[in-house]
Amino acid sequence: MGLHHYSQVIKDTVDKLSESASYKGLCHQVRDGEPFPSSEVLSEIIALSRALLFPGFYGDSIVNTNTIHYHIGVNTERLFDLLFQQILAGLCFDNNCDSNTEYNLDFLRESALKKAAEFIEYLPKIRAVLATDVEAAFNNDPAAHSQAEVIFCYPGLRAICNHRIAHKLLELGVPLIPRIISEMAHSETGIDIHPGATIGASFTIDHGTGVVIGATAILGHNVTIYQGVTLGAKNFPLDENGNPIKGIARHPIIGNDVIIYSNATILGRIKIGDGAVIGGNIWVTHDVAPGARLQQSNPKK
Amino acid sequence: MGLHHYSQVIKDTVDKLSESASYKGLCHQVRDGEPFPSSEVLSEIIALSRALLFPGFYGDSIVNTNTIHYHIGVNTERLFDLLFQQILAGLCFDNNCDSNTEYNLDFLRESALKKAAEFIEYLPKIRAVLATDVEAAFNNDPAAHSQAEVIFCYPGLRAICNHRIAHKLLELGVPLIPRIISEMAHSETGIDIHPGATIGASFTIDHGTGVVIGATAILGHNVTIYQGVTLGAKNFPLDENGNPIKGIARHPIIGNDVIIYSNATILGRIKIGDGAVIGGNIWVTHDVAPGARLQQSNPKK
Amino acid sequence: MGLHHYSQVIKDTVDKLSESASYKGLCHQVRDGEPFPSSEVLSEIIALSRALLFPGFYGDSIVNTNTIHYHIGVNTERLFDLLFQQILAGLCFDNNCDSNTEYNLDFLRESALKKAAEFIEYLPKIRAVLATDVEAAFNNDPAAHSQAEVIFCYPGLRAICNHRIAHKLLELGVPLIPRIISEMAHSETGIDIHPGATIGASFTIDHGTGVVIGATAILGHNVTIYQGVTLGAKNFPLDENGNPIKGIARHPIIGNDVIIYSNATILGRIKIGDGAVIGGNIWVTHDVAPGARLQQSNPKK
Amino acid sequence: MGLHHYSQVIKDTVDKLSESASYKGLCHQVRDGEPFPSSEVLSEIIALSRALLFPGFYGDSIVNTNTIHYHIGVNTERLFDLLFQQILAGLCFDNNCDSNTEYNLDFLRESALKKAAEFIEYLPKIRAVLATDVEAAFNNDPAAHSQAEVIFCYPGLRAICNHRIAHKLLELGVPLIPRIISEMAHSETGIDIHPGATIGASFTIDHGTGVVIGATAILGHNVTIYQGVTLGAKNFPLDENGNPIKGIARHPIIGNDVIIYSNATILGRIKIGDGAVIGGNIWVTHDVAPGARLQQSNPKK
Amino acid sequence: MGLHHYSQVIKDTVDKLSESASYKGLCHQVRDGEPFPSSEVLSEIIALSRALLFPGFYGDSIVNTNTIHYHIGVNTERLFDLLFQQILAGLCFDNNCDSNTEYNLDFLRESALKKAAEFIEYLPKIRAVLATDVEAAFNNDPAAHSQAEVIFCYPGLRAICNHRIAHKLLELGVPLIPRIISEMAHSETGIDIHPGATIGASFTIDHGTGVVIGATAILGHNVTIYQGVTLGAKNFPLDENGNPIKGIARHPIIGNDVIIYSNATILGRIKIGDGAVIGGNIWVTHDVAPGARLQQSNPKK
Amino acid sequence: MGLHHYSQVIKDTVDKLSESASYKGLCHQVRDGEPFPSSEVLSEIIALSRALLFPGFYGDSIVNTNTIHYHIGVNTERLFDLLFQQILAGLCFDNNCDSNTEYNLDFLRESALKKAAEFIEYLPKIRAVLATDVEAAFNNDPAAHSQAEVIFCYPGLRAICNHRIAHKLLELGVPLIPRIISEMAHSETGIDIHPGATIGASFTIDHGTGVVIGATAILGHNVTIYQGVTLGAKNFPLDENGNPIKGIARHPIIGNDVIIYSNATILGRIKIGDGAVIGGNIWVTHDVAPGARLQQSNPKK
Repeated sequence: MGLHHYSQVIKDTVDKLSESASYKGLCHQVRDGEPFPSSEVLSEIIALSRALLFPGFYGDSIVNTNTIHYHIGVNTERLFDLLFQQILAGLCFDNNCDSNTEYNLDFLRESALKKAAEFIEYLPKIRAVLATDVEAAFNNDPAAHSQAEVIFCYPGLRAICNHRIAHKLLELGVPLIPRIISEMAHSETGIDIHPGATIGASFTIDHGTGVVIGATAILGHNVTIYQGVTLGAKNFPLDENGNPIKGIARHPIIGNDVIIYSNATILGRIKIGDGAVIGGNIWVTHDVAPGARLQQSNPKK
Repeated sequence: MGLHHYSQVIKDTVDKLSESASYKGLCHQVRDGEPFPSSEVLSEIIALSRALLFPGFYGDSIVNTNTIHYHIGVNTERLFDLLFQQILAGLCFDNNCDSNTEYNLDFLRESALKKAAEFIEYLPKIRAVLATDVEAAFNNDPAAHSQAEVIFCYPGLRAICNHRIAHKLLELGVPLIPRIISEMAHSETGIDIHPGATIGASFTIDHGTGVVIGATAILGHNVTIYQGVTLGAKNFPLDENGNPIKGIARHPIIGNDVIIYSNATILGRIKIGDGAVIGGNIWVTHDVAPGARLQQSNPKK
Repeated sequence: MGLHHYSQVIKDTVDKLSESASYKGLCHQVRDGEPFPSSEVLSEIIALSRALLFPGFYGDSIVNTNTIHYHIGVNTERLFDLLFQQILAGLCFDNNCDSNTEYNLDFLRESALKKAAEFIEYLPKIRAVLATDVEAAFNNDPAAHSQAEVIFCYPGLRAICNHRIAHKLLELGVPLIPRIISEMAHSETGIDIHPGATIGASFTIDHGTGVVIGATAILGHNVTIYQGVTLGAKNFPLDENGNPIKGIARHPIIGNDVIIYSNATILGRIKIGDGAVIGGNIWVTHDVAPGARLQQSNPKK
Repeated sequence: MGLHHYSQVIKDTVDKLSESASYKGLCHQVRDGEPFPSSEVLSEIIALSRALLFPGFYGDSIVNTNTIHYHIGVNTERLFDLLFQQILAGLCFDNNCDSNTEYNLDFLRESALKKAAEFIEYLPKIRAVLATDVEAAFNNDPAAHSQAEVIFCYPGLRAICNHRIAHKLLELGVPLIPRIISEMAHSETGIDIHPGATIGASFTIDHGTGVVIGATAILGHNVTIYQGVTLGAKNFPLDENGNPIKGIARHPIIGNDVIIYSNATILGRIKIGDGAVIGGNIWVTHDVAPGARLQQSNPKK
Repeated sequence: MGLHHYSQVIKDTVDKLSESASYKGLCHQVRDGEPFPSSEVLSEIIALSRALLFPGFYGDSIVNTNTIHYHIGVNTERLFDLLFQQILAGLCFDNNCDSNTEYNLDFLRESALKKAAEFIEYLPKIRAVLATDVEAAFNNDPAAHSQAEVIFCYPGLRAICNHRIAHKLLELGVPLIPRIISEMAHSETGIDIHPGATIGASFTIDHGTGVVIGATAILGHNVTIYQGVTLGAKNFPLDENGNPIKGIARHPIIGNDVIIYSNATILGRIKIGDGAVIGGNIWVTHDVAPGARLQQSNPKK
Repeated sequence: MGLHHYSQVIKDTVDKLSESASYKGLCHQVRDGEPFPSSEVLSEIIALSRALLFPGFYGDSIVNTNTIHYHIGVNTERLFDLLFQQILAGLCFDNNCDSNTEYNLDFLRESALKKAAEFIEYLPKIRAVLATDVEAAFNNDPAAHSQAEVIFCYPGLRAICNHRIAHKLLELGVPLIPRIISEMAHSETGIDIHPGATIGASFTIDHGTGVVIGATAILGHNVTIYQGVTLGAKNFPLDENGNPIKGIARHPIIGNDVIIYSNATILGRIKIGDGAVIGGNIWVTHDVAPGARLQQSNPKK
């Protein structure tokens, strides 16, 4: 439509956008035969994982005791295949960005297969810890009618489920893919947990929109967090070029049985002691003693 | 791909994930012939409702005065059918979780039909109150060019629309489904309104990301709320086992003509009087008098 | 299903919902031959733009140096066609709402073609400024492993990309469409930037859920913003009817090299001076001097 | 994949295939703003027509007496819109091919609207004659259990339905589109009826694969035809260049109540008299008297 | 588009098409809660059946010895569910057409479940006889490179596969559904086998377009048929109203080891003896002795 | 649904269908990392080829002189990628069936890349010969209004187009894939041309349903064929086991300028001389002299 009078504009823009200088650092070129990270495939990976972990709640199969074995078999096999492919994509992507690394596709394939198998093997443990998360969410929320409602409807549980998957993949040395899986939960729920964060059992996030948990945060067991809570970094040591040094522990350590109310901001490598309660809308940058209760000063009337 | 060397891992994991002990409380088994709650069908239900309530803005039909009757006819009929099916799914789900209830599918079907019809009958009233919400949003926001822009673009209106649908379904005694409809709006807009909340006419939520309104909250007419506002519970009376007692009134009562600015947190069964203005980023846990204006104390420089 | 016994309810509701009085102001009627804004087409427009701006990261084409020219050609042509159609839809929508405007479809078509071509011509400049945003995000975040990870995974960058597109369209005088493009990013990332906001190069939003930037905000270069930050209006001058006057400058002006931490709320036409640092969870309604550092008063223990 | 070593081959081929001389007469270029014939849209047109003509058998709506009016309303409106667009596409295509015709898009639009309306107006008559075809098929086939089975399963009826639609469109002066509709039935059923053929009521085609009925054929009422029957042209008068002269009547005229068995070939502008029976696998190139019975000579043993 | 000037035409046509007299006998109304035959579901049924019968050739699963059991489990369970539903749809359809039958949905459900289970139980036998068909096609066709090619590419085998499924369903007393399954093969391959036909093992149809095999035909073992062959009825005894009497044996009986070449037409309840060879393009209406060879008389030059 | 009472039937059938003896010769197991022939990918290959050969008629791109180069570039690159993958799938499939061949995936990949590139290089020649076919069809058919109509609507041309693609792939030594491409045309048009057949320029098939052209047939230039024509084998020399010997020349050789009317059957390695005309419905098993005219003997009245 309307191309006649404007075709020169199109042609000129195409030429400009095709100049290699103009897309330097903004273009990704895949080597022959490499897979590429795919958000569609990763969505299927998450859907398959949820179907395996919570049979009958997720996945389109009508599960019953007689045939559940078939469904878990088909889903596990397919999960392994897709994971292998996306782990390989992550390894290639990483390799591609770091031009000093020697490149060996066969080696990367072997490595991806091994990591995919290790993840599959770990699935029963993920299910076991998620069972504690479901129970905690049910116990902590007077509005929850049943554990089934928690599994089926609670965004917090979905974000935690993605996190436990992404965290394991990160532990296995998979690049990029864990970050994308976290971002999928972030976009779906508004909860942004970096895959690097270490989180204990019986973890509850209620409502959850705006929650941020940083890469080096460590959370104990039975922690409860409300919407808008940040567990972030306070400041970043800079290198000689004035850029933040990567990889330093910079996020809080949260003890067991801690509750953090909505919109609280906890920054830096500080410790929040066991059983502490942090009130809403406050900014915490120093250690908090076990059992302490912090809250905002009174508003001006 | 690559299944040969890893097939034993897959087989072992399938066996572990198929052990019934491992999925106790995490698996949902549907009885013969029961429908199951479906987020795809519920998405269509919301789309049909929006098309009926705001003809020509939502829905893919090109509406005009001569043929609008046909479109509303087809959409209403389909909405009734789908609602009936999902209400039945909700009743069965609830029944399933509560093993003490006697189960009678025919009775549940009759009940679902009745509730679906009552909801359909109520649709004109939902349209009437949404008309006041649209007008309020237009009047409150200097950036809004027209009511049409509010209907077409404002996430706040979409969240309120889902809420008014979900709230009516909850009033009709439909389990689970209202919660899923709320969560759909939460995921789309970042606004989390529990279907139990009672909300008056001319309600505005601007921007809205991070808003949380609890199950027993009551809001008057002409209330305006900004992003990040929480109307939550302060603490929960515990039962003898240390678990929160379910169903107690625990969220704020907001009067008429109240404005609550961004990131304010209002907790507990307190009353915010008519015409009060609550400033941003503050934490309120006591009653506020009518016409009062609260704001944060000055930051430390 | 079950229509027999309830058909009268359906019929009556259809009649009520079809009464023109009941949908006054809530119904949109398109004139003959006009296109209508389509969120599906706008999604494709954003996908095409991302594929053109970051080749190989977005879009399903496997890009390589030999054939990139073909892909950019096809995508640019299609982008022009779709943009033309949606810009026209926006012009018609606007025209439709303002019944005093004289209506001339041929004139609107010419205007839409011209605006679409001007946008296409501007694409290389959008790519250039986004390159500075990518670099800034990488430098500011110790968790980022590479610029590629920023492009591929960071929601902040996606929101900024949509904003730079929407802002240009607004400058070209396109109604409604820029707002929808902003809302698409808002729904995907929880970041709500009004298309009217003016934002300098090297802009970073980290995590981002709950960020709100108002229509008349002006941001300098190298600004960094964290989750939950509001750059909003403090209050609105009212007209003689008590409604806010539209179009007045009412949002903050942020200088160069400013950092604003999570959940800070900055309201009104105030100035935050170059190099200032605003701490988290605070409410700022007065000018802040260049280089100043604001933070929350200590919480009550 | 594998583009590196073969990119020169691709580049050279692209250049060759892009030379305008190489696609002369094989390329179709649409003028600005013209629609193009679309087999997907035409499939929807046929589906809508079948849903209107045989409610409840075709179309995904569950029809009942109370709501059928809504469904027919929505389907008729949409059929009109799609038909208008495809008729316009046909007029433009035709115009495009004939470069001597003066081109006036507004005139073609008016013409397309008029033809679409005339077709819609004619639909009840198409339903009435198809009712005679259904009855005839049921009466002629001992294997048919009910008229419902004929409507739902018989390919002959689908081909006749497409033909009666295509024939009316041809009568209304619509180019190209009738031919595509015929070909859709041909591909689905193996029955190839040129839209120009004139066919009376109570027409039966049983099995039907391989049936060919030419453009100028005329069939009376109550004709029955089996698989593989050709009603074709014998030879074509040539013009001075040795090419067949277009538009001459060259196919058979079949009387009322004629039966033609499988694989019979009837060629040329001959007349088959009322009540004649033509046996299978024979070649007929002369007139056949009313009531005559032709059959193949005995095979050699 | 263009609705304004033509809306009266649309309205009038809608009214005419909605008059119940005009769709008498052409409309199908489903009773509450009944399923309806669905060509999409039946396509999935055929796809599942092919995947079960020829694992790895059909179906999207990558089969291997270790996991084939899971895939066959999931596919069999789903096939049972879908078959149950479509058999029920067939029973209801039949019941609906025959208004004298007393109607009992629960009884029909029980009956459908029983028939579905009997079909599932019979699947291994269908696989066994199809194995003989594959072998025969490979042996009979010099162009076939492997049995795998026959399974993967030969339309004859697909038609036979559909037939063996449809024939079993007919034997089980399922109405309508077998006919639709036959028609699906007819449309895909041009081969029209009535589900009633009885066909022995090692059956080959080569090329196949235009083949017709009637409802009461009986074929022995090791029969080979080429394209365009008809095994049809010669004439039909009429009842007192002049309509064909339904259900009489009227198609040929073909012995073992018979070959019938292309476009031969064999009509009536005649017997073709074992080992006979019927040449192409001939019409046979009398018995043929075992071992006989028939061919067409020489053409006139 | 209804699984409870019938689960034992399902379980038993699954066990039977999973016994390896029961699927011997009927199951295809892919080796690690091999692609598999995919009818969906092959459909896209044909669609891309048609879009390249007849720009603007096929493919969804709106072609114009200024941008056609971009479209042909993108389509050629994608065609190369998909072809490479499917050719590799064909080579693996063939290899898999022939267990004596030594297996080397890298070698097969190199081979597939080479064949894909050779095919791409040959595309301009396919376009050139198809141009003669289009012209011939237009000249031969008085019902054709334009060459554009032939390209857009004529099934004969689609079948010839698929054949010329499949034939080239066969010449390049690609297994299986050419056969599937032929079958796709067969299913769409009812025209069954074995990819091995050698066919000259200016070839016309009119109507075409039921046409069969065998693997070793050779056709000269300017041949015209009507529906139902068979160019087949008469009989097959048998090997010592009574099976047909594969690969012997056994189909007719047709000269230049020959016309063969509908349903004629021409069998065996005979020669039909230049300019001969074969009448409809006859069976020819001996050579026919140049310029001869054969027709059926008169039917018995």
